[in-house]
Amino acid sequence: MPRIWIKNGIFLTPDKSNPVLHGHMIVDNDKIVYLNEEPPESAITAGITDIVDGTHRLYMPGLVNTHGHAAMSLLRGVGDDLALHVWLEEKIWPNEAKFTSTDVRYGTLLSIVEMLKSGTTAFVDMYDHMEQVALAVEQSGMRGCLTRGVIGLCSPEEQDSKLKEAIRFAKDWHGKANGRITTMMSPHAPYTCPPDYIIRIVEAAHELNLPLHTHMSETAREVAENERMYGMRPVAHLEKLGVFGRPCLVAHSVHLNNEEIGILAKHDVRVSHNPGSNLKLASGIAPVIKLLQAGVKVSLGTDGSASNNNLDMFEEMRLAALLHKGISGDPTAVPAFDAFMMATKVGAESIWLENTGALQVGMKADFIALDIDQPHYYPKSNYLSHVVYSSNAKDVTDVWIDGKRIVQNGICLTLDEEKIKAEFSRCYTNLMSH
Amino acid sequence: MPRIWIKNGIFLTPDKSNPVLHGHMIVDNDKIVYLNEEPPESAITAGITDIVDGTHRLYMPGLVNTHGHAAMSLLRGVGDDLALHVWLEEKIWPNEAKFTSTDVRYGTLLSIVEMLKSGTTAFVDMYDHMEQVALAVEQSGMRGCLTRGVIGLCSPEEQDSKLKEAIRFAKDWHGKANGRITTMMSPHAPYTCPPDYIIRIVEAAHELNLPLHTHMSETAREVAENERMYGMRPVAHLEKLGVFGRPCLVAHSVHLNNEEIGILAKHDVRVSHNPGSNLKLASGIAPVIKLLQAGVKVSLGTDGSASNNNLDMFEEMRLAALLHKGISGDPTAVPAFDAFMMATKVGAESIWLENTGALQVGMKADFIALDIDQPHYYPKSNYLSHVVYSSNAKDVTDVWIDGKRIVQNGICLTLDEEKIKAEFSRCYTNLMSH
Repeated sequence: MPRIWIKNGIFLTPDKSNPVLHGHMIVDNDKIVYLNEEPPESAITAGITDIVDGTHRLYMPGLVNTHGHAAMSLLRGVGDDLALHVWLEEKIWPNEAKFTSTDVRYGTLLSIVEMLKSGTTAFVDMYDHMEQVALAVEQSGMRGCLTRGVIGLCSPEEQDSKLKEAIRFAKDWHGKANGRITTMMSPHAPYTCPPDYIIRIVEAAHELNLPLHTHMSETAREVAENERMYGMRPVAHLEKLGVFGRPCLVAHSVHLNNEEIGILAKHDVRVSHNPGSNLKLASGIAPVIKLLQAGVKVSLGTDGSASNNNLDMFEEMRLAALLHKGISGDPTAVPAFDAFMMATKVGAESIWLENTGALQVGMKADFIALDIDQPHYYPKSNYLSHVVYSSNAKDVTDVWIDGKRIVQNGICLTLDEEKIKAEFSRCYTNLMSH
Repeated sequence: MPRIWIKNGIFLTPDKSNPVLHGHMIVDNDKIVYLNEEPPESAITAGITDIVDGTHRLYMPGLVNTHGHAAMSLLRGVGDDLALHVWLEEKIWPNEAKFTSTDVRYGTLLSIVEMLKSGTTAFVDMYDHMEQVALAVEQSGMRGCLTRGVIGLCSPEEQDSKLKEAIRFAKDWHGKANGRITTMMSPHAPYTCPPDYIIRIVEAAHELNLPLHTHMSETAREVAENERMYGMRPVAHLEKLGVFGRPCLVAHSVHLNNEEIGILAKHDVRVSHNPGSNLKLASGIAPVIKLLQAGVKVSLGTDGSASNNNLDMFEEMRLAALLHKGISGDPTAVPAFDAFMMATKVGAESIWLENTGALQVGMKADFIALDIDQPHYYPKSNYLSHVVYSSNAKDVTDVWIDGKRIVQNGICLTLDEEKIKAEFSRCYTNLMSH
């Protein structure tokens, strides 16, 4: 059982009035057991297996990416600067239709290496061939909240088969990999699933006692289309279909009116804000200030790297902190501390990981180290601000998940990066050749 | 005279239809003399002093930061998430008033290290104690377009003395450091300089045959105030005072109407777009799409790191590409190529460096190398897109300016980073202690 002592480090804690702690942290197995300015007494340091010099390092919780499609790394840069329907219809869907389970395996593994090295310790993934995603998560040591996203625009037989597959995956993998994998049920979106199909997915989630995850109100066009087809906007539509009767995480939520924000707050629906993807696809900017004022839990997601185009959660954290100031005209909107929490503790809570996402005694030891001996971390003063407004994904040197070192000095210990890049390139070449 | 052969690299060129070139580049002294897919013939490689293996590297022009105040790194994180007037009046101005020339020296040197290591090869600096800035630029090997920003809200004697100082600086340093330093004249802003003082600065610029640089229309409040005081908006005001009768670079330009955009286009006024700083201070978002449509040269700047909070031009380039899509609803707005040009060639042109900012035969050898053997540069396909949408300032491994290697494997060869950080910290402690 590892017992790690991080000596003389700087730690970002969820204490709003005093978030920067200079001191010591001890991890016992998968938990933080000590965090204090004072050095630990000898009784506490007994049995230490690993002493880490914290000088020139800042420690913070691992970042939690609450919406994405990891395998879409295979389509990074394949279609940029295009109108959304051209992007989807000509670049994304035809290529995704060709994805084999091997493609999903290596697309996901490449993304996991990217995420781990840039400080993300837990992520949501909604895709197809989810068995491959789960195996990749298991092997990587990362934490994953996984779900087979089902699109119901198909024959009843295909609908049945997809739903069965989603249920089987959710059942088989929930709680696996020492509890690092949890699962959800996912109608892909209100515009890709007929209402009766959504109702069946909700029923399955009730039976499995699992949360739901879906895309919602990403574009104005989608909202208008929902009104045309069902006589109501997506939020009322999903509420009516019972989606919010279960624990629920919705991605995007760009186009919401005040009434809809009230509905989300009432049902404690969690929102994954994806600023980078929403800007790049020109979908708009989610009303985050209003969501926060209404008490909705807002976390951050990158979305897939076909629409982002990276999985850099530091960038999403900074975008969240900057964007809503700029468009509201209020420089006090989404202050650094709030953005930090959205990217860490609130992210974990949004995927029902109640004991993860914060450096606090009793919490899971999912944390990262940043190299702060660099010009952009000077003056040595407001480190919370520096992390949110000035840091860089590549400042991450080390990553621990469940108390295990997963990245050391920028090298991923659990996965063979060179092999993954080679296999990924093979998959890409294949994909583009037919 | 160095003669460098970059072998088997990937090069980003300003050729819109085919920006990614796989091949070879040769630099002779300070110029690019060869760039081609084919390996150079032996006549061209004669006298090569330095062969660089370009495998796993992408080469692009160095980034050009067209607006900033380097010494303000001393105030990074000192005031965040505050209303603009609180930020200025309580956090920035009282501290700036205490700045000594030593503070400016080390604040600037720290920023230069940050800029060089993140791939910026030329920058605009408007500040006080400019002699220190020029000395730092000279020592660093960087390119600087420097100007003493004068605020005229003072006695006539003080106005005279500041103007004399600005003229002396501009005259003494223009063309120095092997031509790497150029100078401008700068009324700080229309709201900090009375009209007659601006007229005198313009006259001096005419006499010195130098361009002008100023802050303009950064906030809605400033525009309203200008109307109240002078009966017209800042653009008409500056036009009337003759500012646009000289080559002119204006920073921010957030609040512009169509008529004003027409005036800027008519006079070929260059705009430094500062998206990060404008968002953080909640100033708003400049009408970049309209400016580009009107044919205005729009380049990118970080502004000072007290309001950004870093000097990462990759971030500004990405913000420029993302932001205007998101707010216009047009995913084809500011495509990757345009953002790349804004950060490089257009940046150089905006500060009247006509032979800098592009990888092309005959251009100055100001270029940088990125490590592309990383997950976020896969698939190995659309490298222009990857650089704009997926890259990271710390992907920069090497920097050449005027054909001289300034950064090698992430280490700045011309400046002593450790000494600068130590002296900078001393300055900061001093500054905060009284």
